[in-house]
Amino acid sequence: MSNHVEIPATMKAAVMTEPGQIIIEDIPVPTPQANEVLIQVVAVGVCGSDVHYYEHGRIGPYVVEKPIILGHECAGIVVSVGEQVSRFNVGDRVAIEPGVTCGHCEYCKEGRYNLCPDVQFLATPPVDGAFVQYIVMRHDFVFPIPDHLSFEEAAMNEPFSVGIHAARRCRLQPGSTIAIMGMGPVGLMAVAAAKCFGATRIIVTDLEPIRLEAARKMGATEVINVKEEDPVAKIKELTHGRGVDVAWETAGNPKALQSALSSIRRGGKLVIVGLPPQDQIPVNVPAIADNEIDIYGVFRYANTYPMGIEFLSSGKVDANLIITDKYPLSRTQEAMERAIHHKNESLKIIVYPNE
Amino acid sequence: MSNHVEIPATMKAAVMTEPGQIIIEDIPVPTPQANEVLIQVVAVGVCGSDVHYYEHGRIGPYVVEKPIILGHECAGIVVSVGEQVSRFNVGDRVAIEPGVTCGHCEYCKEGRYNLCPDVQFLATPPVDGAFVQYIVMRHDFVFPIPDHLSFEEAAMNEPFSVGIHAARRCRLQPGSTIAIMGMGPVGLMAVAAAKCFGATRIIVTDLEPIRLEAARKMGATEVINVKEEDPVAKIKELTHGRGVDVAWETAGNPKALQSALSSIRRGGKLVIVGLPPQDQIPVNVPAIADNEIDIYGVFRYANTYPMGIEFLSSGKVDANLIITDKYPLSRTQEAMERAIHHKNESLKIIVYPNE
Amino acid sequence: MSNHVEIPATMKAAVMTEPGQIIIEDIPVPTPQANEVLIQVVAVGVCGSDVHYYEHGRIGPYVVEKPIILGHECAGIVVSVGEQVSRFNVGDRVAIEPGVTCGHCEYCKEGRYNLCPDVQFLATPPVDGAFVQYIVMRHDFVFPIPDHLSFEEAAMNEPFSVGIHAARRCRLQPGSTIAIMGMGPVGLMAVAAAKCFGATRIIVTDLEPIRLEAARKMGATEVINVKEEDPVAKIKELTHGRGVDVAWETAGNPKALQSALSSIRRGGKLVIVGLPPQDQIPVNVPAIADNEIDIYGVFRYANTYPMGIEFLSSGKVDANLIITDKYPLSRTQEAMERAIHHKNESLKIIVYPNE
Amino acid sequence: MSNHVEIPATMKAAVMTEPGQIIIEDIPVPTPQANEVLIQVVAVGVCGSDVHYYEHGRIGPYVVEKPIILGHECAGIVVSVGEQVSRFNVGDRVAIEPGVTCGHCEYCKEGRYNLCPDVQFLATPPVDGAFVQYIVMRHDFVFPIPDHLSFEEAAMNEPFSVGIHAARRCRLQPGSTIAIMGMGPVGLMAVAAAKCFGATRIIVTDLEPIRLEAARKMGATEVINVKEEDPVAKIKELTHGRGVDVAWETAGNPKALQSALSSIRRGGKLVIVGLPPQDQIPVNVPAIADNEIDIYGVFRYANTYPMGIEFLSSGKVDANLIITDKYPLSRTQEAMERAIHHKNESLKIIVYPNE
Repeated sequence: MSNHVEIPATMKAAVMTEPGQIIIEDIPVPTPQANEVLIQVVAVGVCGSDVHYYEHGRIGPYVVEKPIILGHECAGIVVSVGEQVSRFNVGDRVAIEPGVTCGHCEYCKEGRYNLCPDVQFLATPPVDGAFVQYIVMRHDFVFPIPDHLSFEEAAMNEPFSVGIHAARRCRLQPGSTIAIMGMGPVGLMAVAAAKCFGATRIIVTDLEPIRLEAARKMGATEVINVKEEDPVAKIKELTHGRGVDVAWETAGNPKALQSALSSIRRGGKLVIVGLPPQDQIPVNVPAIADNEIDIYGVFRYANTYPMGIEFLSSGKVDANLIITDKYPLSRTQEAMERAIHHKNESLKIIVYPNE
Repeated sequence: MSNHVEIPATMKAAVMTEPGQIIIEDIPVPTPQANEVLIQVVAVGVCGSDVHYYEHGRIGPYVVEKPIILGHECAGIVVSVGEQVSRFNVGDRVAIEPGVTCGHCEYCKEGRYNLCPDVQFLATPPVDGAFVQYIVMRHDFVFPIPDHLSFEEAAMNEPFSVGIHAARRCRLQPGSTIAIMGMGPVGLMAVAAAKCFGATRIIVTDLEPIRLEAARKMGATEVINVKEEDPVAKIKELTHGRGVDVAWETAGNPKALQSALSSIRRGGKLVIVGLPPQDQIPVNVPAIADNEIDIYGVFRYANTYPMGIEFLSSGKVDANLIITDKYPLSRTQEAMERAIHHKNESLKIIVYPNE
Repeated sequence: MSNHVEIPATMKAAVMTEPGQIIIEDIPVPTPQANEVLIQVVAVGVCGSDVHYYEHGRIGPYVVEKPIILGHECAGIVVSVGEQVSRFNVGDRVAIEPGVTCGHCEYCKEGRYNLCPDVQFLATPPVDGAFVQYIVMRHDFVFPIPDHLSFEEAAMNEPFSVGIHAARRCRLQPGSTIAIMGMGPVGLMAVAAAKCFGATRIIVTDLEPIRLEAARKMGATEVINVKEEDPVAKIKELTHGRGVDVAWETAGNPKALQSALSSIRRGGKLVIVGLPPQDQIPVNVPAIADNEIDIYGVFRYANTYPMGIEFLSSGKVDANLIITDKYPLSRTQEAMERAIHHKNESLKIIVYPNE
Repeated sequence: MSNHVEIPATMKAAVMTEPGQIIIEDIPVPTPQANEVLIQVVAVGVCGSDVHYYEHGRIGPYVVEKPIILGHECAGIVVSVGEQVSRFNVGDRVAIEPGVTCGHCEYCKEGRYNLCPDVQFLATPPVDGAFVQYIVMRHDFVFPIPDHLSFEEAAMNEPFSVGIHAARRCRLQPGSTIAIMGMGPVGLMAVAAAKCFGATRIIVTDLEPIRLEAARKMGATEVINVKEEDPVAKIKELTHGRGVDVAWETAGNPKALQSALSSIRRGGKLVIVGLPPQDQIPVNVPAIADNEIDIYGVFRYANTYPMGIEFLSSGKVDANLIITDKYPLSRTQEAMERAIHHKNESLKIIVYPNE
């Protein structure tokens, strides 16, 4: 493989100049530092957080205060390598883990680098993201992918990582019965993660038929449409009154959270993945103590990329099953609008910066 | 040691005939089954739950529907041994773990026998408790104590066990900074447990000066009177803005729970020991996810008795420091009234059934 | 289903009167105690330990000193239920966990009941085993199986349990690369367990082609015949020099143990399942310290039966693939002889006491 | 505090030109990189590995091939701060963690940075160590110490860290009974670590009375001189036949390792800290399986410095108790000779580079 490719001086970028408006600009192609690589971005998934910034200009404490480039679920091809980097060659196909951490704080040192207070995370203000043709990334957050894994699938390793991290946080046991609330892309990839960790019964809830259908394809063994059935009653029925070993809330919905907690057996576990918009949510605290429930918060992920790529490559997970829409970079704004207005038709949307 | 003592046919028992009324009755001394021992009860601690049944006749789903004998923190002397029991001799001084479990369900088999659905727990309706002169107990819930440990101290192993279990549930690390909310007897013994597990900073909160003072004696390094100071602000100040590694809520107070959660550092842990009277408590759920907090419910304890006796015997913990009042069995009702009406003077009250 | 079946007064039993001699005797059908069930035995697997007692009359400290009935991998039909047992009805199809523990010692209480010093284990002298037509068992060691699971498969839950326990002991992570040394029935079922726990690369070693072939069917991704290749060199090659995350030694072979240790990556784990005949085996101790290896001994299993039945029933594991021979009870001695003399043809042999 | 101190251009260094010969040379004072600090070295402990390089010129695969500066247990005062470093000011008193890791490999990312293959460890060939007047160190391996902690004590945090890491590796439980084999400085600090983790019985072995005496001061509850008593028999006697929960081998002695393994109760744990000179040591492998022993290798430590400083500062551990000898830098060779020839008089020797 050649160690050199032609790199242009400028590139196209999809810049959100203000909430609700994304325009294509020409900006300089960045130069990698000694410990970085430059990557030609091939595929970028549209994440719920991208859409949220596009609609609302903020997520909790993170506020968009100047033009920003969104997008952080991405994969591509290495086109230039910093002088200290020996792990990569030009031409390598790679997935990008989008948060660069300091490496020095107690969290980084202890292996929980997702809690690093100085993380630079793509598409989290004020850090620009991946809706661009080229991006630089510190080499240790870049991971090779095998030839038979598509770039779209590799990009999906990002939401998949959240599911893997959730499974690890609660030490999900093979043979478990799990309920997963909310079948957006994160929930759907969480189903795949639960399956990879050996859960044998995966009960899911949502209110969109398209999502419940996709959940079945990803490995859900039972689906509950919360418009039609009471999820707690149904889960209790499905488990002969016992409840599930573990429940994950991925929807950021207070009601789903309460249902999740009520669906768990004694001694079971709850994982909170979704971020509800409200700060204070009524929670049945006596039930937590009485039943010795464990609750685990999940914030992004750490050390998941190699495992995720392993699963996606092994055929255990087919991320293509939930990719419904594809857009070139020039139509990024359209991609956002579709994500907002067609929740009953769209699951994961992919943007292609170099097509 | 003689293997025989004279056992009377009847004994005194403090029977709660209805909430607010305890009378002394003569009842038959029970006979141990083959796998049980008969114990002359020497000391019984008055627990908050005893007082709650005395005042209100119920705790959550547990309702007093007929006369009941309260008391479950107890120690005494073996006076008779069932034929299958080889671990004990007449005359052995022992602490009693007050919940007898089935031994066959999944929880018992997995070592979490405190979650056994068929547990028979002393002084939890309809099971009679320890405000009696003699009690039978299955041998595996009886534990020998060394000669230099008093019966009062041995009785205190019960609330101490809750603290030990809390420390284990959250895998409390030596060198940790911990906040413990609520300095009733359970909270005070939790301070001792945190110290035994190597916590080097133990910050406690309460509103009664006598309790905060006792907390210092048990090992608290800093005390906060929540009537005078905002506990969250003070904890943040004491930890230079970082927050504590772990917080335990032992008061069953919604505000204390919220303070506990707000006092924890990123990646820290919350243990819920206290049972709040309300079912639904507003909780900052986004903070749990954002900061990857772990929350652990605590329901009683399991496998704590040998460790607790070891600590109490080793001199690491002096449970006598929080014993403020002593009553003979005949004045059990007075003991209850004192517990209710003198919270600013009384900590742990001990009843002596055989004095 | 009828709650009554005709139970004869006597039954056939395959009694080993001395090593190398098994005869069929008529003995009384036992009567279940209050907490036991009586089970008509349908299928019994021949285990390596049965064969070892048959050949040598002892395994380590366990010595056959009087006639004994062997066999402990078994499943059958409930035909009578003790008065305290509510979990079972006559006619229930069940798998039998063959070790009855005391339920009262520290190991039982902590969930490690496989270490109970007072366990009564089928076919471990002097306790009689399952090569009989009817057997009694304490109800909590009996587990219902679904209709679509055959009795042979249910009997295989016993060796499968060893693999599940090994996976739990080392907290086998999904996506792991594992080496398993020795493809006897325990090793083969260990392959299945590793697969159920999500291992994505399973490298196995043995010297019999039939076993390596069976290993592939059970889920091995690479097989090494140690007669033809150096296992350590081959594993290093297959893992690009890194070594495996985890290795399990199931053969009880010193050389396999040394190979296993040498095949592990830095920070990896070794599980010792097989019992070598020698007491002292040369081990590379500096490598354990330098590479921070974890080593876990495995003795039988605990709390594995429900999980094993779940996997066997779900279709994730097909235990039939390794059943090669079937015998009626009357030919139990022949079954033993075949196990000894046809290791290159036979894998698991099943005995049918009621055919 | 002034932000500037005078830094000379050259400094004294104790250079081992060949095994057995250390001379004092003038060498340039190094300049810190942007992410480093320059530290005036105040106290350096003499470690067994320093002495081993001095005597033998190698430790296993690490060979001294050119002149080297030894010493890696050190503390001092920050005298210059790289431009990217905000955690330190000139004048800060600090302890130095002597291994600088890459921060990017899987081990660093997962929190096990002691296994980093690219670590640069002071005084491990070819990396120079701390027997110098000034040293540079990456800021994240430098830790502030409180005013009341002496530099000698802070230097002792290095061997203490090994004990802390051992305790964590085996998840040492409060209330445990532990045996620690070998009372050299690492063993003695391991006693302190076991005490900080709440072990209530600490049984130690050695053959030098001075070491056993020191062990008592550090917290050992029972001492065994292996010249006078059989350690296994004595430990069994002291534990009423049960054995210890945990044993740590710190001596690198095959016999001590075998004794350690034989002293452990069923289900107990062995930690291997000491590096034996031989590659192959006979180990009772069946006992590991039969008793379900866990064995954990220990290689240096990770994330121990803050905890160690906390314990040393809190008064729980008095490292001064084992400091027996003090030398200026000019007499470093004498210090080495004393360490070799006066094992029955010397415990920890400290070298002072700036006196």
